[in-house]
Amino acid sequence: MSNFWIRTISGAAYFAVLLAALLINEFVFGAIAAIFTGVLAFEFCRLSDGASLKAGSVVSIVASVCLFALVYACEVFGMQAKYVSAVFFLMPVMLLTCLAKPSAIGMKTVAHELACLIYIALPMSLSTTLVFRGGEFDGSLLLSFFIMICCSDVGAYCIGTAFGQKKGSRKLCPEVSPLKSWAGFWGGLGFCIAAGVILGFTQLMNIPVIHSVALSIIIHLGGTLGDLFESRWKRDAGVKDSGRIIPGHGGLLDRLDSSLIAIPAASAYLILFNLW
Amino acid sequence: MSNFWIRTISGAAYFAVLLAALLINEFVFGAIAAIFTGVLAFEFCRLSDGASLKAGSVVSIVASVCLFALVYACEVFGMQAKYVSAVFFLMPVMLLTCLAKPSAIGMKTVAHELACLIYIALPMSLSTTLVFRGGEFDGSLLLSFFIMICCSDVGAYCIGTAFGQKKGSRKLCPEVSPLKSWAGFWGGLGFCIAAGVILGFTQLMNIPVIHSVALSIIIHLGGTLGDLFESRWKRDAGVKDSGRIIPGHGGLLDRLDSSLIAIPAASAYLILFNLW
Repeated sequence: MSNFWIRTISGAAYFAVLLAALLINEFVFGAIAAIFTGVLAFEFCRLSDGASLKAGSVVSIVASVCLFALVYACEVFGMQAKYVSAVFFLMPVMLLTCLAKPSAIGMKTVAHELACLIYIALPMSLSTTLVFRGGEFDGSLLLSFFIMICCSDVGAYCIGTAFGQKKGSRKLCPEVSPLKSWAGFWGGLGFCIAAGVILGFTQLMNIPVIHSVALSIIIHLGGTLGDLFESRWKRDAGVKDSGRIIPGHGGLLDRLDSSLIAIPAASAYLILFNLW
Repeated sequence: MSNFWIRTISGAAYFAVLLAALLINEFVFGAIAAIFTGVLAFEFCRLSDGASLKAGSVVSIVASVCLFALVYACEVFGMQAKYVSAVFFLMPVMLLTCLAKPSAIGMKTVAHELACLIYIALPMSLSTTLVFRGGEFDGSLLLSFFIMICCSDVGAYCIGTAFGQKKGSRKLCPEVSPLKSWAGFWGGLGFCIAAGVILGFTQLMNIPVIHSVALSIIIHLGGTLGDLFESRWKRDAGVKDSGRIIPGHGGLLDRLDSSLIAIPAASAYLILFNLW
């Protein structure tokens, strides 16, 4: 099978899984998001551990999925106030790992495990709050965010390819990602704002236009930052893709790197302005 | 001045600062806890950076204090639902640091910075919830926790010295802390439960005896774990004390290592059983 078809089919499958998670019901969402959390944590830990996963990383992956499950359960059973306890119960468990085999697990690994909790598990867990509106499951807002991130990517790619790759065109962060240009950055922003404004008028998002624009800007900035941030982990680990779970596309972390920062940042805005 | 007097005076001063934070009003608490957060983050970052603090660590210390200030402000103004936004707004800021100087800041440092947020800033920030009861400032519960941790320490020291240092006595975790014995562990547990039960009957804690005992066990376990955990960071960094801010006693992180795990764990229990 040619690479084109592999990419197309696996890309479509990934898209179908995302839609299923957001449109069917809370249990499908919970199951898929829990699996995503585990895969993301696995790929993130692999960036530090290399080919063979360390014992501490296994605990960190399990802890990430548990954190998601606990926060999800709090949300499903309407116990939002219990979030804090979920985070707190996991801390001691995490820490125990580094006492189990002190000579085998270095503190650099432990730091990476704790970073996994705040970089992967916390955003994934708290994204749960976005799919419940007044106790009812409603994935439309999170879907809008994914669409906006997608438009931001497409815009950056198109405008960046057309105007950003000439000799002398200014690059966004050449040390981290040599191809990303400022032209692409502005193109992505334009596409993202257009998507945000259109979605703001639909039933999907239904948010006043001023807030739609603000959200678009936050999502574009957060997404770009998340993308560059993940590139740095990969560059440091000396790998090109975070994994191989989506054939032809790389790992799940490569797909969701923008979302891991963009969606929490957008949620913060929504909470702050009582829009959710 | 002899070492004994230096230790006594600085110990008393530290104790006075703790009491001031917990007994005067919410502003004294906020100011002292914010400074503590900064000092703890500073000492934690120094464990990774060594003598000269890296640029990324400065951001991580500032971010830790900001996180505390944001959560504190949410609590003072009765906006508990905004916690999440506080955490989320800080993430992108943190990440920006590692893009500012990609070649200078390694990802090991970034992992350590993120670990600082979850190990130092999050527990310190959320301890704020413990000093407000129904919107009013009330440091008595947190004071009880400190007393219980103190009793656990004293019990472990006394019983451990008396029974745990004989030839052949079993050690708790010899690879991390060669002197800590199981005798000391059980002694600390006994003292902690006694303190918990007594405090449970007073106005300070006022909690049913069954929950007092459970809280004591959690605090003792969390405290021991926190102590060992901090020892590992220090051992890995090759230092004996985390700092020198309390003359004769070492750093603030050495003083609060137990509390950083014990108090969040106890809070989780309180929240879970609706005792707070």
